Amino acid sequence: MVVSINHPDFAALRINGARLMNTLHSTCDQFGAAHRYGSDPTETGMARLSLNDDDKAVRLWLVEQVTALGCKVTIDQMGNIFAVRAGKINDVAPVMMGSHLDTQPTGGRYDGILGVLAGLEVLRTLHENDYATEGPVGLVNWTNEEGARFPMITMASGVWAGSIPLEAAWACVEVTPLTDGSEPKTVKQELERIGFLGDVPASYKANLIAAHFELHIEQGPILEDEGQRIGVVTGAQGYSWYEVTVIGRDSHAGTTPLSARKDALLAAARMVAASNHVARRAKGFITTGRFDVEPGSVNTVAKKVTFTLDVRHPENSSKVDMVAECRVVFDRIAKEECRSGMEVHWKTLAETDATVFPENCIRMVEDSAEVVCGRLKGTPQGRKLWRRMLSGAGHDSCHVNKRCPTAMIFTPTRGGMSHTPDEYCSPGDCVLGTQVLLGAVLRYDANRKR
Amino acid sequence: MVVSINHPDFAALRINGARLMNTLHSTCDQFGAAHRYGSDPTETGMARLSLNDDDKAVRLWLVEQVTALGCKVTIDQMGNIFAVRAGKINDVAPVMMGSHLDTQPTGGRYDGILGVLAGLEVLRTLHENDYATEGPVGLVNWTNEEGARFPMITMASGVWAGSIPLEAAWACVEVTPLTDGSEPKTVKQELERIGFLGDVPASYKANLIAAHFELHIEQGPILEDEGQRIGVVTGAQGYSWYEVTVIGRDSHAGTTPLSARKDALLAAARMVAASNHVARRAKGFITTGRFDVEPGSVNTVAKKVTFTLDVRHPENSSKVDMVAECRVVFDRIAKEECRSGMEVHWKTLAETDATVFPENCIRMVEDSAEVVCGRLKGTPQGRKLWRRMLSGAGHDSCHVNKRCPTAMIFTPTRGGMSHTPDEYCSPGDCVLGTQVLLGAVLRYDANRKR
Repeated sequence: MVVSINHPDFAALRINGARLMNTLHSTCDQFGAAHRYGSDPTETGMARLSLNDDDKAVRLWLVEQVTALGCKVTIDQMGNIFAVRAGKINDVAPVMMGSHLDTQPTGGRYDGILGVLAGLEVLRTLHENDYATEGPVGLVNWTNEEGARFPMITMASGVWAGSIPLEAAWACVEVTPLTDGSEPKTVKQELERIGFLGDVPASYKANLIAAHFELHIEQGPILEDEGQRIGVVTGAQGYSWYEVTVIGRDSHAGTTPLSARKDALLAAARMVAASNHVARRAKGFITTGRFDVEPGSVNTVAKKVTFTLDVRHPENSSKVDMVAECRVVFDRIAKEECRSGMEVHWKTLAETDATVFPENCIRMVEDSAEVVCGRLKGTPQGRKLWRRMLSGAGHDSCHVNKRCPTAMIFTPTRGGMSHTPDEYCSPGDCVLGTQVLLGAVLRYDANRKR
Repeated sequence: MVVSINHPDFAALRINGARLMNTLHSTCDQFGAAHRYGSDPTETGMARLSLNDDDKAVRLWLVEQVTALGCKVTIDQMGNIFAVRAGKINDVAPVMMGSHLDTQPTGGRYDGILGVLAGLEVLRTLHENDYATEGPVGLVNWTNEEGARFPMITMASGVWAGSIPLEAAWACVEVTPLTDGSEPKTVKQELERIGFLGDVPASYKANLIAAHFELHIEQGPILEDEGQRIGVVTGAQGYSWYEVTVIGRDSHAGTTPLSARKDALLAAARMVAASNHVARRAKGFITTGRFDVEPGSVNTVAKKVTFTLDVRHPENSSKVDMVAECRVVFDRIAKEECRSGMEVHWKTLAETDATVFPENCIRMVEDSAEVVCGRLKGTPQGRKLWRRMLSGAGHDSCHVNKRCPTAMIFTPTRGGMSHTPDEYCSPGDCVLGTQVLLGAVLRYDANRKR
């Protein structure tokens, strides 16, 4: 990969790493810190649930910061915050950097938060260098990415992209109520309460975006395991969630011969094991995270088991094939475990296609990563510190990509662990990722001029 | 098998089948009927929980019935009711027929109840025929066989046999409290409340038994499947109950490569499937009836699974071998599923050795079954309607057998289903089993004379 000679070397425009990390930790300290796990002041997790008082406070703080940089702020009907810094030409849509400031109830300081504050740091860097971009460049904080308090993940980017109806999102009721004993609230009630129910439609038609770049922690172990520092994300796996119910017959565990049983639990256990083989062969993922048994007594053969399948693959057709294979295998197991067969019912809980980011956006990130990593001191010759990779998880960028060119940048995640208080990305990696973000955005911006 | 020429043909002494069935259904109707499942008046199940008001009422009724037959009634400290009819010689211990009148909360009309009322019918038959047995013959109703309300199965026969300390049984607290909103009661409180806390020690030393015969429904499908009508029970499987905990690590189901997972649920599912193979090879039973997952979220790899193993085999050494093999296999699976291994912890919940009834008692039952079945009209020549078999479940007789010669008689159970309201044994089979019980008891009684 060679940097286009038409591009200036954006790596000369340096972000302020200390400022980035101070901003990240001071805002986490003030707005939602929880779950201390170490003695260092920064060693807490977060419980900044979407649209709670801490989310309100950090939103007000963000609006203040971007306003101070001269950005124009728009709040849409889903509380998404768009902050746009003018460029040389302003009759084009902005290139946006976006992620989310909300967290899981036992979340960490990096998932989502890093992406928004990295975007802020890029805007600050452009501002203090008085750097004129070709077109407008901005930052977006997407509401309720986590789906933890309001159980609909990547909710507001989904509304913006037209994938989720506004009314459905507004009507979504919290599952983790505030502890003040009040009635569970809807998204719309809480948007109104915290003053972030804007009047601009939450839609790609009303708020155009030219391109969207998202810096995010990997949330997996690949970069760390490979000793690499930047993931150039080419897309995200699709996922399908199913609830499989196996109906057998309860009977006495001591008196019922194996041949006379309809053991729903044994059949379901074999199905879980078999689904893992299907996933391995297809180089995809199938995970069972829930497994509920009736009646659930030591000496009673189970009559009913309901378990979930989380099926993922980078290619939609392979995901479909995996599910089809599971259906065949499960039916075979149900027959094997009982001559007369057991009922096996499938219910689809969620379904999302795989995301493929456009090559031009991926190339902007890749070019930027190559230059930024290439300048790192002490890197052995020929050691490549970045790699193309897929996202295993869904992100706001997956929705946004349906409406404008999008790409993502991943940074290493200690132990591959996220959604946990001690989720961690080193300061060096946070800074490196932010510098790559800056380079990708400015490359895209520079390119659109021509 | 040839009936000893020294034995009179006890089958000439006929029990009254209509009276037996009327007694069974009328007492079920009056004392604890619940869970109607059909339109016939007898088509309900039972909820006669140990020491509740219905159990009290049926006990008072039973005492009245046996007293009317001239029996001497003794209530021991566990509320066991012993009713003894005098014989020609009365300085020897009685031959007892015993089972239990309590049921599961969603129990049926036959499990336990049939055995006690069959014993009553035998006593009534002896009485109306003015039949003089060699020694005393009697009936015992064992308290809390089910362990449903007070969670300790075959409780009071266990105390009688010296296997369960009296104080532990007395202190046992109900898990299914009465619905009057009162504090959960102990066994002793409830014995006192219903007037069945006797002052005779609950012990084989205070209440001697010469031999013990129990008629019981099979609770399994073997007799029905084989088209046979009487099970001559030679013993009962031992059982061991374990709780196995697998500790992995929770992680994101979309971002964690299979190779980096510590998926406790996948490992546990494979263990359940593997334990079934161990059981099949050893011709024993291993059943998993509980399977609890943490955290139990669709898209989170499970960090912890706790599941139970109910391990049974007619031979103790084979049961021990099965458990040992499971331990090895589970450890191997834990290693296969994660390079660094997952923790696997075993906790013993209960352990009972296999029961082997003495051959002389088994022969009494077998002789009786052969004669009784041989007289049935319309039985094809050479068709054997009884079989020796093992009990899969535990019974009061397993405790009693430790202190006196014991055997059991099984009758067919529709679909092998018990502990359910529509548990069913046909009138013909109830009557046949009772007639076999009479023959076995009188054979044992006649034999001890010589």
